[in-house]
Amino acid sequence: MRHSISVLVENQFGVLARIAGLFSGRGFNIDSLSVGETIDPDVSRMTIVVRGDDRILEQVMKQLNKLINVIRVVDLSKEEHVGRELVLVKVVANQRDRAEILSITDIFRGKIVDVGPETYTIEITGDENKIKALINLLVPFGIKEIARTGRVCMGRGSKSIKV
Amino acid sequence: MRHSISVLVENQFGVLARIAGLFSGRGFNIDSLSVGETIDPDVSRMTIVVRGDDRILEQVMKQLNKLINVIRVVDLSKEEHVGRELVLVKVVANQRDRAEILSITDIFRGKIVDVGPETYTIEITGDENKIKALINLLVPFGIKEIARTGRVCMGRGSKSIKV
Repeated sequence: MRHSISVLVENQFGVLARIAGLFSGRGFNIDSLSVGETIDPDVSRMTIVVRGDDRILEQVMKQLNKLINVIRVVDLSKEEHVGRELVLVKVVANQRDRAEILSITDIFRGKIVDVGPETYTIEITGDENKIKALINLLVPFGIKEIARTGRVCMGRGSKSIKV
Repeated sequence: MRHSISVLVENQFGVLARIAGLFSGRGFNIDSLSVGETIDPDVSRMTIVVRGDDRILEQVMKQLNKLINVIRVVDLSKEEHVGRELVLVKVVANQRDRAEILSITDIFRGKIVDVGPETYTIEITGDENKIKALINLLVPFGIKEIARTGRVCMGRGSKSIKV
């Protein structure tokens, strides 16, 4: 099963390396990882998407909790949550194909954020299935480059993961 | 100066920990980091935003280039590029404030992605300044939680960072 783990950490040198090391040391590969500031500039929030054995994951989460600089660890996959990702895709857009690429982008509520002589760069946000569907539609035109933020998650309702 | 570094890496255990370790070992703090898949499932793309001494950063990039599993390292801050981030914000939304929060969200072209009895969760994408402006407007209502993907970047025009 795929898990989305939210981790609040103190914004210190080396925390990220230690956390990434904990997962890789246990043989977990990280599908995606995002880390950014919170309202408190001393605290960052990470979202880590991993696949692997549930029992081992539980052990990893316990170890994470014991790490200095780690404030909270929550497996949001076990709760109702919202998950979103942002993706930039640079696609070959010849004169002939431009109208079709524009209409695909519109349907997926994407935005063209850059236009080159032979390319469009598209911004799209959504869940994995939506992004996969768009990418599959763009592949025939020729994808030159792709940059994904990885998934960020938040529990539904009023509950929050706090310091 | 703030730098946005794009790194193509082989999707192997431990690469992320080694890269994060290289930056923290040199005293760089990572403002944001995102890593996600590319079209090639064996290759991931990271975007790392760091602040620090330019001369030391150049050394770190040289060391990154020498790391096994690292395919390409590019400092996109030195080129024309598009940079975007996605942020989820859970804000306290009392009956009295809901209309105002909705109108702020509309102005920033954000989306309400979850509604609780006393909260809205807003999705917004854009550059740092836009996101900072929205967050500042939401602070007075009470921000309960924030999850940022960190910045992803792509060079403008037809050039691309390839394997």
